[in-house]
Amino acid sequence: MTTNTVTRDVEWGECDPAGIVFNPNFARWFDHCTTLLYGAAGWPKPKMVKTFNIVGCPLVETNARFRAPARYGDTVTIQSAFIELGTSSFKIRHRVTLGDRLCVEAVDTRVWSVKDPETGRLSSAPIPAEIVETFGRSNTE
Amino acid sequence: MTTNTVTRDVEWGECDPAGIVFNPNFARWFDHCTTLLYGAAGWPKPKMVKTFNIVGCPLVETNARFRAPARYGDTVTIQSAFIELGTSSFKIRHRVTLGDRLCVEAVDTRVWSVKDPETGRLSSAPIPAEIVETFGRSNTE
Amino acid sequence: MTTNTVTRDVEWGECDPAGIVFNPNFARWFDHCTTLLYGAAGWPKPKMVKTFNIVGCPLVETNARFRAPARYGDTVTIQSAFIELGTSSFKIRHRVTLGDRLCVEAVDTRVWSVKDPETGRLSSAPIPAEIVETFGRSNTE
Amino acid sequence: MTTNTVTRDVEWGECDPAGIVFNPNFARWFDHCTTLLYGAAGWPKPKMVKTFNIVGCPLVETNARFRAPARYGDTVTIQSAFIELGTSSFKIRHRVTLGDRLCVEAVDTRVWSVKDPETGRLSSAPIPAEIVETFGRSNTE
Repeated sequence: MTTNTVTRDVEWGECDPAGIVFNPNFARWFDHCTTLLYGAAGWPKPKMVKTFNIVGCPLVETNARFRAPARYGDTVTIQSAFIELGTSSFKIRHRVTLGDRLCVEAVDTRVWSVKDPETGRLSSAPIPAEIVETFGRSNTE
Repeated sequence: MTTNTVTRDVEWGECDPAGIVFNPNFARWFDHCTTLLYGAAGWPKPKMVKTFNIVGCPLVETNARFRAPARYGDTVTIQSAFIELGTSSFKIRHRVTLGDRLCVEAVDTRVWSVKDPETGRLSSAPIPAEIVETFGRSNTE
Repeated sequence: MTTNTVTRDVEWGECDPAGIVFNPNFARWFDHCTTLLYGAAGWPKPKMVKTFNIVGCPLVETNARFRAPARYGDTVTIQSAFIELGTSSFKIRHRVTLGDRLCVEAVDTRVWSVKDPETGRLSSAPIPAEIVETFGRSNTE
Repeated sequence: MTTNTVTRDVEWGECDPAGIVFNPNFARWFDHCTTLLYGAAGWPKPKMVKTFNIVGCPLVETNARFRAPARYGDTVTIQSAFIELGTSSFKIRHRVTLGDRLCVEAVDTRVWSVKDPETGRLSSAPIPAEIVETFGRSNTE
């Protein structure tokens, strides 16, 4: 499946009085890494929203394990990858590493969502075959 | 003029590795204090936006002096007050204190803004007399 | 077990272009709610750190489900409760509700952690009986 | 004087319900750009702190003008430059541009600060000649 890797400098303001990254910042990074992963799959979010008339793919569940801290001055690597493509939802795994050390591993579940034009309510919808095909294709071979 | 005072606990995640409030958080607090100040004047932001068909009052300038740090565990007081009401802009002063000590003083300038229905461009507009009258009235006498 | 409930206004700057709370802010709220929960149990964090010579109780795992959005202008209720007390770790559940509607439910796992005075390395340690007893006692009966 | 330029993608979570960058994020960016500017001058912050035994250069004043919004999806350029070097303080100007358009211009004042080893109090101190010389030297010729 599609993967994408970025590096990111840990900024002073992202760290707490213990000198380590304050955990909500990882969730903030993962949100942006998700956007970049869509782009790596050939579907920048604005294009995806427009082409399929969706409201987006809201996060419905996240499971994260914090294994080792990252500190101010560190440059971490974040690898994001689709790991499961369901009918109307998909899972993305993010792994933050510092050299060989795994700092954080998270799995996010997102739902392909449309808005009912009459009621304005959001509901899930089947992910188009075209998207399944591109998200599911390896981009690293 | 209208003033409003709140207290706020300094949260762990708002502090940096030096153990003091990371300065952008003050700007975040001031934005919310501005909303509360509108409410104290009898004009909650949604009502103001709807009644006068404005897009809001975007911040166009801020001048802040950081005089003393606030730390995790502190409970600070923030006093916000209108200090100048112009034709289409106004100034609000925010003062963060910790007991007798002044930590931060900031003056924000905001503009009464409308959107041109045709071009979509924002532009300033005269502040309605009704707003000038209520923002300008003391609420502490 | 000990529980604590707070209300919180959703601030403008906590919402994203979709008008809903940007998910990392929930994690930020939960961190502060954890501090308040310790306090509700009679162990404010600074006192707990000092009395038992720990470095704190770092978050090692979080599992969150986002069920319904919260929006700018909403006042949400957050109930936090200890739900499991292990030998050296414990679980806290946070539930964000808007009236009758459950918006977010998260379970955090935290570890009672000490620092080796020689190596500086963090490691888990048994939670003192006194803490287990107070965290485990209901404060709402 | 030394200058440094970076580009930065505007992230979804940095924008508010109006779809534009929430202003405190600019202050967050500027803090990191300041760190990068020190590095561009040959004095990465950790090295500077260690060499001169300072606690850092806390922000004591900021003056910012917000001239045009930046939006999700934009890639902005931020140019940071020393513009004034005093005896114990210095000024840095940050300019955020989007193509030809100036979005934000801010001037920050920072103080060269040491900690009294006995009282623990911070106070300003003269900036070493070596620092004045390197901060003051153009790195773009």
